[in-house]
Amino acid sequence: MKLHGYFRSSASYRVRIALNLKGLSAEHLSHHLRKGEQRAADYLAINPQGFVPTVQGDAGANLTQSLAIIEWLDETHPEPPLLPKEPLRRAHVRAFAQVIACDTHPIQNLKILARLRELGLSEEKVTDWAAWANREGLAACEKLIAAEAGPFCFGDTPTIADLCLVPQLANARRFGVDVAAFPRLLRAEEAAKALKAFADAAPERQHDAE
Amino acid sequence: MKLHGYFRSSASYRVRIALNLKGLSAEHLSHHLRKGEQRAADYLAINPQGFVPTVQGDAGANLTQSLAIIEWLDETHPEPPLLPKEPLRRAHVRAFAQVIACDTHPIQNLKILARLRELGLSEEKVTDWAAWANREGLAACEKLIAAEAGPFCFGDTPTIADLCLVPQLANARRFGVDVAAFPRLLRAEEAAKALKAFADAAPERQHDAE
Repeated sequence: MKLHGYFRSSASYRVRIALNLKGLSAEHLSHHLRKGEQRAADYLAINPQGFVPTVQGDAGANLTQSLAIIEWLDETHPEPPLLPKEPLRRAHVRAFAQVIACDTHPIQNLKILARLRELGLSEEKVTDWAAWANREGLAACEKLIAAEAGPFCFGDTPTIADLCLVPQLANARRFGVDVAAFPRLLRAEEAAKALKAFADAAPERQHDAE
Repeated sequence: MKLHGYFRSSASYRVRIALNLKGLSAEHLSHHLRKGEQRAADYLAINPQGFVPTVQGDAGANLTQSLAIIEWLDETHPEPPLLPKEPLRRAHVRAFAQVIACDTHPIQNLKILARLRELGLSEEKVTDWAAWANREGLAACEKLIAAEAGPFCFGDTPTIADLCLVPQLANARRFGVDVAAFPRLLRAEEAAKALKAFADAAPERQHDAE
């Protein structure tokens, strides 16, 4: 299996955690996003969005979109499960993950911030935008799990919610968000980061880290 | 079951199609997004993001995020299925849906466009932004299913890919995108719109349509 990613891409980070939790190894191929390598013709042929990550399975299939990749990993390698069994619990875990993967991260990714700069926004306003997106998303997430015992987002094992949360908190800090406002999220992050699967997936541990 | 939505919300539109395909009825409760009704305290108590849709199940559970709701409907009411059975096909359908639900729609929703206006962008630039987001997303979607026989996005029955596509094409047209550039998507849309489940879910057919 091959994972096309980038050390600082939070969507790639989610998939790295999933692979580690499943005990799967992959060849990590780096595409330097700030240099635009994700828009090279040979990469666009496997991922027409020009985004990372892409997973190439051993049979040659291309898989794109981090949550679709993670659910595929969970369906093809069921242990340990990354979603609960009960439909309503699954829906709550997926909703939490989607608050981050749909409504938070895509609002503050490299492509959007570059577009804001092209529109003439100052660097300060671009950073304000990214911080705002993170605060809005994480504030909703904090409420979604306020009544969850934990220590992870949902229960005593990590789910796709935690796979989305940990990389997003890293982004939030990078944009200067005061994450102390989210104590329940920080508790889940602490539980997650104590696991080797999460620690080994951290951006600074990747071969392409700068 | 109750569906909290808004006639023009494309995420609500996706869930309306899913309910219709499953033959499920729901009480439709409208929250007027342009008047800010989704930010009322009693609504925030069931959806801390202040977004539509929210589904309230008969047992009182709240479900948020359209794709999580649709997968829950598919798991609890399996016929007709909205995802293929085979894991790799499921991953491709989900990836297509996520190109729209993660990387297209959230970039051009009401909240983001309002934020751009607050930053001083002209109405023309705001519309350009929304059109750009739609073109980028739909261009990727067109490539993802270029080799799919159809007539739907993936095969001869609708999947969650079609549930995301039809509302997004409506948005694209509203922002002036020339959708003729996406012939494969238009073919899937035509197949979908021929079904009563899709036709009945259209914004202009809802009780709160203006």
